[in-house]
Amino acid sequence: MDNMQVVGDGAPFTRLIDLEQLEENLYRGTCHPGAPLTAFGGHVAAQSLIAAGSTVPEERTVHSLHGYFIRPGRTDRPIVYQVDRTREGSSFTTRRVVALQDGETIFSLSASFQRPETSQEHQVGMPEAPQPGDLIAGSGPEEEAERAIFQGSLETRRVTELREDSGNARAPQQKMWVRVVGELPDVPLVHACALTYTSDVRLASTAYLPFSGDSTAPRMASLDHAVWFHRPFRADTWLLFTMDSPSFSSSRGLTRGQFFTQDGKLVASVVQEVLIRRRRS
Amino acid sequence: MDNMQVVGDGAPFTRLIDLEQLEENLYRGTCHPGAPLTAFGGHVAAQSLIAAGSTVPEERTVHSLHGYFIRPGRTDRPIVYQVDRTREGSSFTTRRVVALQDGETIFSLSASFQRPETSQEHQVGMPEAPQPGDLIAGSGPEEEAERAIFQGSLETRRVTELREDSGNARAPQQKMWVRVVGELPDVPLVHACALTYTSDVRLASTAYLPFSGDSTAPRMASLDHAVWFHRPFRADTWLLFTMDSPSFSSSRGLTRGQFFTQDGKLVASVVQEVLIRRRRS
Repeated sequence: MDNMQVVGDGAPFTRLIDLEQLEENLYRGTCHPGAPLTAFGGHVAAQSLIAAGSTVPEERTVHSLHGYFIRPGRTDRPIVYQVDRTREGSSFTTRRVVALQDGETIFSLSASFQRPETSQEHQVGMPEAPQPGDLIAGSGPEEEAERAIFQGSLETRRVTELREDSGNARAPQQKMWVRVVGELPDVPLVHACALTYTSDVRLASTAYLPFSGDSTAPRMASLDHAVWFHRPFRADTWLLFTMDSPSFSSSRGLTRGQFFTQDGKLVASVVQEVLIRRRRS
Repeated sequence: MDNMQVVGDGAPFTRLIDLEQLEENLYRGTCHPGAPLTAFGGHVAAQSLIAAGSTVPEERTVHSLHGYFIRPGRTDRPIVYQVDRTREGSSFTTRRVVALQDGETIFSLSASFQRPETSQEHQVGMPEAPQPGDLIAGSGPEEEAERAIFQGSLETRRVTELREDSGNARAPQQKMWVRVVGELPDVPLVHACALTYTSDVRLASTAYLPFSGDSTAPRMASLDHAVWFHRPFRADTWLLFTMDSPSFSSSRGLTRGQFFTQDGKLVASVVQEVLIRRRRS
């Protein structure tokens, strides 16, 4: 796995997780911005995950990750990823990654990988949504901004909700279809990285929808990020990303997401806490 | 805070988080069993949190924690908690704790603390449930086992659900009221530790309810644990703990919980992934 070839002509996304290996357990990459000059959190998390997974046998697939955004990442210089091989167990492998820039930790990730096993199953049902083929790519300023950020690596189709309230205030929930553009290699870790990247798109804003009548856009920063991978999936096919926010207080919103395949399989869950502050006028 | 007095006559729970300080950033404690010989995960997490919080100014309160259970903890010898002071920011303080036994990491925790700030608010509504005063303490074998495990530190009232399905199979959701017995000191960190401890009670079993018609009890082990604290609360007053499980596959169940005060405030959310395997017959 250490020399895994993830870059291909197939999908622009693979370039985003193409790290340079400096030494055993030590990798280096550069992230694109989310906000101006600040590295996109989903990108830092995806690079941390590819670094972690590059030290794990390919047959063990990632089933969960937990990360903290500790300092803003810069986009004008590389980030170094230092992997600690925490544990090799008979069924599970644990890794920790510290993302470093200018001598400081900007992000820390713990991730766990599992040897394949089968069991009984259950899952929640998939919420109703129009199929992605029946929706058009948005052309509003928000979608234009997203397209610039994700550099052609993702395609999204927002599912428009009926607004229950008057004005701009909305319930804290939204849905979109998302897929990686092009064809990803047949490596589960690459699909997990793509979903991790995707899971940081638009999720944070869910917490602020009830206040979206405010005239000025707020400042947002992700505080943490956790993903659980439930079932095998391909990130280069359409996935329905449903989001809600059960709480906002003390400038912190908790947001939750679930990813479903078009035929209704729940493939991943995500939770993120986000700091959202009004700009001083 | 380093010499915080958490032990009082008021609540047996405080003895469970009474750590010996060995050195700056280094603490030692002993945990009671959950399963035979294996330390109760909620106890290890609560001791890790009190260790982390003991290095943080008291006015900064914990808003989130993420932990991985890496190896089973033993109950016949102490656990050492090593705190890394990751970051002191202007608004946030980050800590990492490694719980060590026999030279190996058994649990790792990251936690984040926030300087108080106010903002707009929203939250989900509280699900319907009878008040705890209208419910009786259970006397089945499960409740007896729980009482033995928690050593008089907790009081619980299970909210019985109507079973929709025939047989023993049930939907993966349950509710209970829970409170710490006695009166805790007026220190937010102690209440956060008590909720963390409580949040590992019965949550894992939620994932297995759809299969609970199986004749033999399965083996369960927590894989990770995350808690987000939304609003101030007291753990020595009744809290409604609602639980559900959106997915079970590959022997792994994802479980989610929310804690509400009696007057409907959402005070915390929890997510845990649990490994559940059938015993070989």
